[in-house]
Amino acid sequence: MKLANRITEINGGGSDGWDVFYRARQMIADGAPITELTIGEHDIGTSLEILGAMHDSARGGHTGYASVPGTDSLRQIVADRIATRTGVETTARNILITAGGQAGLFAAHTAVCNPGDRALFIDPYYATYPSTIRSTQAVPVPVRTTPDAAFQPTADALAAKAQDAVSLLINSPNNPTGAVYSQKTMQAIAQVCHDNDLWLISDEVYDTQIWEGAHLSPRALPGMAARTLVIGSMSKSHAMTGSRIGWICAPEPVIEVLIDLATNTTYGVAGYIQDAALFALGQGPAVEEAVAAPFRRRRDLTMEVLAGQNIVRALPAQGAMYVLLDIRATGMDGEAFANALLDAEQIAVMPGESFGQAAAGHIRVAMTIDDAAYVAALQRLVEFAKTCAD
Amino acid sequence: MKLANRITEINGGGSDGWDVFYRARQMIADGAPITELTIGEHDIGTSLEILGAMHDSARGGHTGYASVPGTDSLRQIVADRIATRTGVETTARNILITAGGQAGLFAAHTAVCNPGDRALFIDPYYATYPSTIRSTQAVPVPVRTTPDAAFQPTADALAAKAQDAVSLLINSPNNPTGAVYSQKTMQAIAQVCHDNDLWLISDEVYDTQIWEGAHLSPRALPGMAARTLVIGSMSKSHAMTGSRIGWICAPEPVIEVLIDLATNTTYGVAGYIQDAALFALGQGPAVEEAVAAPFRRRRDLTMEVLAGQNIVRALPAQGAMYVLLDIRATGMDGEAFANALLDAEQIAVMPGESFGQAAAGHIRVAMTIDDAAYVAALQRLVEFAKTCAD
Repeated sequence: MKLANRITEINGGGSDGWDVFYRARQMIADGAPITELTIGEHDIGTSLEILGAMHDSARGGHTGYASVPGTDSLRQIVADRIATRTGVETTARNILITAGGQAGLFAAHTAVCNPGDRALFIDPYYATYPSTIRSTQAVPVPVRTTPDAAFQPTADALAAKAQDAVSLLINSPNNPTGAVYSQKTMQAIAQVCHDNDLWLISDEVYDTQIWEGAHLSPRALPGMAARTLVIGSMSKSHAMTGSRIGWICAPEPVIEVLIDLATNTTYGVAGYIQDAALFALGQGPAVEEAVAAPFRRRRDLTMEVLAGQNIVRALPAQGAMYVLLDIRATGMDGEAFANALLDAEQIAVMPGESFGQAAAGHIRVAMTIDDAAYVAALQRLVEFAKTCAD
Repeated sequence: MKLANRITEINGGGSDGWDVFYRARQMIADGAPITELTIGEHDIGTSLEILGAMHDSARGGHTGYASVPGTDSLRQIVADRIATRTGVETTARNILITAGGQAGLFAAHTAVCNPGDRALFIDPYYATYPSTIRSTQAVPVPVRTTPDAAFQPTADALAAKAQDAVSLLINSPNNPTGAVYSQKTMQAIAQVCHDNDLWLISDEVYDTQIWEGAHLSPRALPGMAARTLVIGSMSKSHAMTGSRIGWICAPEPVIEVLIDLATNTTYGVAGYIQDAALFALGQGPAVEEAVAAPFRRRRDLTMEVLAGQNIVRALPAQGAMYVLLDIRATGMDGEAFANALLDAEQIAVMPGESFGQAAAGHIRVAMTIDDAAYVAALQRLVEFAKTCAD
């Protein structure tokens, strides 16, 4: 029996650099004391208050089919939050509730790309981006950024790939680089979208994690609301990673067809999870800042640990819950360094190569363990890098 | 800005007969005392025991990213349940946990059909079938059944459409007809799959609701396990409709690529919902029989109410939580009758035409209100049909 090409070809082929991750997980399963700094999972779980709101909703009877586009109240509070944060008029009809940010990325590309269409994304990138685009049968086209430009995409690099493209996917604050796109970068992005009639898909799931500069949603730039689909999520802002709830904010005609798609793909999101998200968003920004605070602290601790040496360098580290460390001074690539670090120090990090060729010679460190353990691990990492560089 | 053709064309076009449903919902919103017999929602919610298990799991910390294929324990209990019920060897590696049966239908067609491939389905059909197939850009091809053959597909009807097709989607017990496919029907289905090298997608979400005959999973027929993808769900068996949790049972190579797809579409299902499903399935068949019991009672009550007259006839009514009523003796089509019934009696039912042309001249009645109210509504429906037929 033959499977469809489109599903057997999702992963592209070639090494994706995740071997070290799976090797670390196996070592943990075998009882080894591995310090895991790999994935974007908070070291707190979802708060008991949010879980209590969810249970109240479920016990109160919200266990039947929920409205496929999302409950009216959740769509409204998401719209209001976006309007407040960006200054762009936003109504509930601009919002589709999705089964997490990943479901939003898939749906957004399905809505704007036909099979064979060229879909741009920025390299380095969150690991699923190319395979998500391939899942919709569009053709993923990377736009390279460089460490020298602090991983900000340039107008020239964008323009060089934009001809005949249909969409551009960006992510600021960025996973894995920690870059927060500047006003100048966002204007270049808007310009290339206008010049080439591109849809912009803006993954803003880290928008509550800003350590330097300010978050700018490109939907707020002149003329961009009509061509931008923003992906949002409760995962990072409220430590609700496992609950799989997020949204797409887009022009009404886009949301209308996305509702048709949702009817046929997920048939909506659990009502009690939506009510939990409604409760969480209703708690306001202070809760979001409290969830982000450990990463802000650990980013500052990172800079302290790395001060006074040049073997391991953290740039740009402006936002998100990771730091991308440049370890090229060791003479090793990211994958070799990550494997050697795991064996020598029982510390698991992700090779930069897992996030694209533009991140080669780097490693991504998730700041997801308590401060003292994090500092100790980072110090050992630096000492190990020094021995590699000798 | 231009949307992708594939998303703007999901709904096909033409009336889908759901106007009466939305009209009834609006009347309810306006305060009218409508008796709603439209959708497949139990009149009980999810049990407090299951919700308690979910809350315990969430409070216990299962709020982070869950394993994308599903937790090992849930995959195992689903595999064991299928092995027990069908006699077919089934392991956890044959199971992918999905965000509900609908997500399973979408993923299954994505796995086996390339864009443009012909995907067969049986008419009458669950409302999303053609649009789900279009969502994957395959071409939906109906295979008509007839009331005279009790809505069982025949070997000839299947063979006439199977050439050059890639997949066949069936649903037994059937929504909307209530047909439970016979051994003879299932053998004809297996034969056409063998003769034309078709994948079989078997939607078995009503498999705990059998009023006459026995459920036969076609995966149990000789040679069929290698070409069958079974769609299962907790929605109907455990009144967990809103929780959006189900599964696909398929050959291991199919599950492997479906995991790749799930990584890029939903990134798994909430861990605490998986734990709730694990608890629910662990309660065994008695709980499933208790959830099904009201529909068994109401199906028998339906037969009592309809006895002694020939204007409204229920056939085949062998399974599932609906009865399909033949109202052709009134001289009206299903849509006209449903609209007239709503206006005259404040009773909302679904026109047969909403489920395909093969169900024209019928209405689908969901047996989803308490017994006394159900009997009273059905009696009024019959009396109204008599006045129409006069």
